[in-house]
Amino acid sequence: MKLRARLVITGCLLLAMASAAFPQTQTSPSASPAETKALLARLGYPPDAKLLIVHADDLGMAHSINRASIKGLESGLVSSASIMIPCSWLPEIAAYARSHPEADLGLHLTLTSEWALNRWGPVLPKDRVPSLVDSSGYLYPTETEASAHIDPKEAEAEIRAQIARAKALGIQPTHLDSHMGTLYQSRALFETLFRVAHDNQLLVRVSKEWFAAAPFLPSLLGPDDVVMNTIISIGPSVTAAGWSKFYEDAIKNMQPGITEMIVHLAYDDEEMRGVSFNHPDWGSEWRQRDFQFVTSDAFRKLLQEQNIKLVTWREVSKLMKKAGK
Amino acid sequence: MKLRARLVITGCLLLAMASAAFPQTQTSPSASPAETKALLARLGYPPDAKLLIVHADDLGMAHSINRASIKGLESGLVSSASIMIPCSWLPEIAAYARSHPEADLGLHLTLTSEWALNRWGPVLPKDRVPSLVDSSGYLYPTETEASAHIDPKEAEAEIRAQIARAKALGIQPTHLDSHMGTLYQSRALFETLFRVAHDNQLLVRVSKEWFAAAPFLPSLLGPDDVVMNTIISIGPSVTAAGWSKFYEDAIKNMQPGITEMIVHLAYDDEEMRGVSFNHPDWGSEWRQRDFQFVTSDAFRKLLQEQNIKLVTWREVSKLMKKAGK
Repeated sequence: MKLRARLVITGCLLLAMASAAFPQTQTSPSASPAETKALLARLGYPPDAKLLIVHADDLGMAHSINRASIKGLESGLVSSASIMIPCSWLPEIAAYARSHPEADLGLHLTLTSEWALNRWGPVLPKDRVPSLVDSSGYLYPTETEASAHIDPKEAEAEIRAQIARAKALGIQPTHLDSHMGTLYQSRALFETLFRVAHDNQLLVRVSKEWFAAAPFLPSLLGPDDVVMNTIISIGPSVTAAGWSKFYEDAIKNMQPGITEMIVHLAYDDEEMRGVSFNHPDWGSEWRQRDFQFVTSDAFRKLLQEQNIKLVTWREVSKLMKKAGK
Repeated sequence: MKLRARLVITGCLLLAMASAAFPQTQTSPSASPAETKALLARLGYPPDAKLLIVHADDLGMAHSINRASIKGLESGLVSSASIMIPCSWLPEIAAYARSHPEADLGLHLTLTSEWALNRWGPVLPKDRVPSLVDSSGYLYPTETEASAHIDPKEAEAEIRAQIARAKALGIQPTHLDSHMGTLYQSRALFETLFRVAHDNQLLVRVSKEWFAAAPFLPSLLGPDDVVMNTIISIGPSVTAAGWSKFYEDAIKNMQPGITEMIVHLAYDDEEMRGVSFNHPDWGSEWRQRDFQFVTSDAFRKLLQEQNIKLVTWREVSKLMKKAGK
């Protein structure tokens, strides 16, 4: 099986995708500095506050990912993470969630199964969500194949089932996001995601940067939804030598408001090399580099120097609910 | 979750289990020396031939198991192995099966999910086989819990689905056996296993040693079924220091006929330590010891000295079919 590039949620790919999928408008509704100040005020922060969620994706997919992500969370430099419910190492991270109720763990809603040698299917019976699975019986390998086939009603049933399964295992999710951005691939899928999130009173990863390509997005937001200024997410164009500099530059460029930095933590070990076989992008060495950067003293110092406050989805959700009362 | 002892298919546990489950008879129908000679003659071997299937269990469960088992198969000292269809590393071993059609790969029919941190469910939708899953939605952790709850009709549907799934992924199974011996736990489950095996023209792991505890077994055998003299399978009472001696003694004691030696191969690496967390029996160090023994020069020499011929399930099946014509 040929592996594929994975969606970077940085605007450019979303833009390319959205250009075809959505009718474009001339004016893109993005949050103004005044709106950012109002958001920070609602959260109880001064107008120049720079808040950062350092977020590890993909927990539950591999033991290597679980180990490195737990280490990241416990270093204090990773503030949040999200879990893939259909994967085989879910029991390990569910046990961690039960024994660490303070950990900020959301759900990485999963509608794709992207690796060659280790795969998974939906939580719901395949015959109830046939549009979600490929001919081999697993979830589609790419977000584009998935979104081309998915019936949004089946996606909705599946993500509701993933939330129910998480809760049944004792996970109380603090937020939602979408593995490989599959739920960000069309208006219908975005609507599905927000409907499910609002029904569950959960915040969703969403960035101002996406509004230009998906101009309907603001209309889907509820009064308590929180929009990131920027999502910092490293892509395949960054070389190993330029890894730290990419993150350092991005952090130095942070503006007042809330930013999310998405990292993929794992060790470059046999298991992770097996998972990411033949696919260096988001592979084992990539994840080891992410792990080394986010658990480094240099990262800790940089956050202090730039006067950046790490926050969690749980804190942001609580403050929004409190402010909304 | 507390882990549990795993069934050793050596007669004593089967006997203990069977004593409760089956009506006992005074005479246990076991194969006579004459029957062994007749079997060897049908297979085209002299009457004193000692044939051995060295068989690795549990492929598909972990990358560590796949890697070590493939290395074992390719050393020439492991002649056969079987695959767990519900597990997440199935695509890796299915790819190997497709690219190595000569490999003797059967199905390790799976009705239990025994580890704490990494688990799996049935191939069929859970709502079609509700008696197979525990309250957490996975297969039961032990063969005793599983067999206490399983409706044999649902077990039959599930193992037929596992065979169909294997074939859909390009695996042409050479034989069947039962993970943790769950399908050896009652007469109804044995009947299910043989019915499915006969319908698929596949041989099943079965040993003469089991006849005393399960006196109905011979009546379930078809004319082409092949019964092992003995199954060599190391148990938790053997210390690490006594590992090689256990196997050496068992091999030196082999009698004419066919013997199966069941091994569990993996590396003592982070992934396997995670899988077998808190469970040294059949754990990562155990599997590393098995790997070291079966790929050793000492094992190769021993087989030569004892004039033991390694055979595969495929060879035995073909010879039986040919003889039956």
